[in-house]
Amino acid sequence: MREASLQGAGGAAPSTARRDDRAHVLHSWSAIDTLNPTVVAGASGSHFWDEEGRRYIDLSSQLVNVNVGHQHPRLVAAIQAQAATLCTIAPYHANAATSEAARLIAEVAPGDLNRVFFTNGGAEAIENAMRMARLHTGRHKVLAMYRSYHGATAGAITASGDPRRWPAEPGMPGIARFWGPYPYRSAFHARDEREECERALAHLADTIAVEGPHAIAAILMESVVGGNGILVPPDGYLQGVRALCDAHGIVMIADEVMAGFGRCGEWFAIDRWNVVPDLITFAKGVNCGYVPLGGVIISDAIAASFAKRAYPGGLTYAGHPLACAAAVACIGIYREESLIERARALGDTIIGPELRAMQARHPSIGDVRGLGAFWAIELVRDRDTREALVPFNASGDANAPMMQFAAECKRLGAWPLVMGNRLHVVPPLNIEEGTLREGLAIVDEALAVADRFTAN
Amino acid sequence: MREASLQGAGGAAPSTARRDDRAHVLHSWSAIDTLNPTVVAGASGSHFWDEEGRRYIDLSSQLVNVNVGHQHPRLVAAIQAQAATLCTIAPYHANAATSEAARLIAEVAPGDLNRVFFTNGGAEAIENAMRMARLHTGRHKVLAMYRSYHGATAGAITASGDPRRWPAEPGMPGIARFWGPYPYRSAFHARDEREECERALAHLADTIAVEGPHAIAAILMESVVGGNGILVPPDGYLQGVRALCDAHGIVMIADEVMAGFGRCGEWFAIDRWNVVPDLITFAKGVNCGYVPLGGVIISDAIAASFAKRAYPGGLTYAGHPLACAAAVACIGIYREESLIERARALGDTIIGPELRAMQARHPSIGDVRGLGAFWAIELVRDRDTREALVPFNASGDANAPMMQFAAECKRLGAWPLVMGNRLHVVPPLNIEEGTLREGLAIVDEALAVADRFTAN
Ligand SMILES: Cc1ncc(COP(=O)(O)O)c(C=O)c1O
Ligand SMILES: Cc1ncc(COP(=O)(O)O)c(C=O)c1O
Repeated sequence: MREASLQGAGGAAPSTARRDDRAHVLHSWSAIDTLNPTVVAGASGSHFWDEEGRRYIDLSSQLVNVNVGHQHPRLVAAIQAQAATLCTIAPYHANAATSEAARLIAEVAPGDLNRVFFTNGGAEAIENAMRMARLHTGRHKVLAMYRSYHGATAGAITASGDPRRWPAEPGMPGIARFWGPYPYRSAFHARDEREECERALAHLADTIAVEGPHAIAAILMESVVGGNGILVPPDGYLQGVRALCDAHGIVMIADEVMAGFGRCGEWFAIDRWNVVPDLITFAKGVNCGYVPLGGVIISDAIAASFAKRAYPGGLTYAGHPLACAAAVACIGIYREESLIERARALGDTIIGPELRAMQARHPSIGDVRGLGAFWAIELVRDRDTREALVPFNASGDANAPMMQFAAECKRLGAWPLVMGNRLHVVPPLNIEEGTLREGLAIVDEALAVADRFTAN
Repeated sequence: MREASLQGAGGAAPSTARRDDRAHVLHSWSAIDTLNPTVVAGASGSHFWDEEGRRYIDLSSQLVNVNVGHQHPRLVAAIQAQAATLCTIAPYHANAATSEAARLIAEVAPGDLNRVFFTNGGAEAIENAMRMARLHTGRHKVLAMYRSYHGATAGAITASGDPRRWPAEPGMPGIARFWGPYPYRSAFHARDEREECERALAHLADTIAVEGPHAIAAILMESVVGGNGILVPPDGYLQGVRALCDAHGIVMIADEVMAGFGRCGEWFAIDRWNVVPDLITFAKGVNCGYVPLGGVIISDAIAASFAKRAYPGGLTYAGHPLACAAAVACIGIYREESLIERARALGDTIIGPELRAMQARHPSIGDVRGLGAFWAIELVRDRDTREALVPFNASGDANAPMMQFAAECKRLGAWPLVMGNRLHVVPPLNIEEGTLREGLAIVDEALAVADRFTAN
């Protein structure tokens, strides 16, 4: 592993890596002139460090993908071994790594979800899940949630219910949208979780009725909404969605790209409610993104639709051996290090209690929610009105309070994942207890910056 | 490298890899019951072998991606070294591998295409190129060719002009289509290449006029059409497209996912005609698919559109360090082993002459075309009428002649890439001369099967 180099701090000439980056890279979701990225020199476990030797506790797991931490030795070794054996092969062939990954994924998936279509990442998984649902049902519409993110290709971004979709509109035809449960800011004027659940299901049933059940191929949702706020559905909601899908012959697609593979203290978040969807989309945690991989896990009934009829979708790197070997190793790590159980324990015994304790100390914390190693605190100007610390989709000056809070976390040595008016606390599932407590203490200290913007 | 295991041939129980594959994998573009895949046990250079020890000369380069052959030691070593350093990092960070890959890609790209947006594969590259063109121009329509393939996400598949698009329709709005040059089956009743070029350009100009030049963001085309027939544009065509784009402020997108990175005996196929497009999409050859990678190379003018305004697109694995380190090594291999020049020489001195000599011997060969290591022979029932050996988009029994021809190639030890009524001869650029001649001799022998279906 490369050691953090300590030269170059404080006004030295930019490194080659920084110069090449500024001259030659267009980063995701960024403007060239305003992004001044951290040049990451190395990473290990729950830390990474930049070229100047600044170390950060990784509370972000990057984009919530390095569930086993950075540079896990067993995962690195598996990649190196597979690289020596067979890096790539066309998707119409079979090979040992892809076969084993598919079997292991089917093993950990709920119910009769026994077959895997592999992609490179989450967006392609969503694209293919929607296509499968359409072909299986012979129907066209897909119902998707406001406040959701499913990826940035034309189909996936149209299904996404967040502002990242706007510049891509008009996107793929056939998406209709509904509101999901969000007790802290209820779309249904509900007074508690039970009422939120009932009303959200009634709203979904109404939406199905007005869109026409006979025309609806699928209902697509994140089992626990991730990037849009770590919105844990009230008990009963996902069961209710399953019942609506069953009543109308609609395919239930659970997007588990972020929430799956241990993040929520279950193999798949939806297991928490014992609901079996028809299709699961996955990526990120399947191999922690050490090699790009995603896919769709398919029920026997939907697979049967493609027993004799060719499934019309594919990609050059589908079932990539190197990526699949990393998945095999990663599932092995989850199992042998009991990381699913550990994620649950982290949430129940450390992250949840600590964040709730902070809420008592910091007027800027409006809401604390989450499960497993998947938590958010929502920052507000005023707890009574729940006015958000920054407006919806804020940028530039309007976003300054959150930017200042994030900068303070970094200054103190913890890397935060900030989305809208929220901090997402989503560390690796195997983070050492001491490191986690250190990271949370930094958040606690940095919240003084957010508190300054509150009414109280 | 794993050795071919010789046990198990002839009726033995299926291997674990085969059993898991049959039970748990849905392959790209395939029906579960009818696909009986080859289980690839290993590969080296221009050969791969199955579990039963059958070796194949790889005339396919898989899906035309392993341009440096299988398991190139230097590429494998670079992946192993980067795996030990930093496998993954979020796309909003910078790191040495990604920065260097971007600089090297900009170095080999034509003109002022100096900036790279990285994706996981070809389809995502196309999605993002179309989005960039739309935002840069403020226009919505994209003109795309019949007989083309751009990938299988909603935007890319809609842009594709081949039957794989049909089950995904209606796809993304805003695609209008035109016919490209194809001298052997001219859409314009042209008698020669010069006339084909003139008429194809007139047709494109007319299409622009009737679609409304003010509304057209981009013209998207493969510089040399790959999967749909290795259609080499007549001299002057790409220059003419460039001129039409300039006249109307339209972004020219060259899809070089298959044709780029040496395949055509140039860094990018379009270099053969000294045309500089505004955007280039790439994947496959950039690192030979050893780790999934694709992207868009962006002109300075289009990059300037995203200097202050955030580019609204991204993906979790954009600029993936492991994939980018493989690209750095791969570009090094192209340079140090002079593979660009070698590809040109292979086409000029071996593949072209040998295929033309076969045409003299085999009545089933209607047309021979290509450049570099990118060739196709088109098989016909009758050279005079040019009736194809199998109908357009044939499947099942209608496709039997091509299936039998392909099976004969495999039986004789060469792995063919068969598309429609064509054999694509697209070996690794560093294939040994003896192996290439051996592979071509197998094609020659197998053509006896195709000849049986001809009228003569
Ligand atoms: C729930 C969910 N679905 C899909 C995606 C898209 O995945 P990718 O970025 O790999 O395309 C994401 C990405 O964050 C996600 O969180
Ligand atoms: C010219 C071209 N563009 C785009 C693609 C799509 O690339 P991918 O399969 O990596 O999505 C392909 C795939 O063969 C291609 O040949």
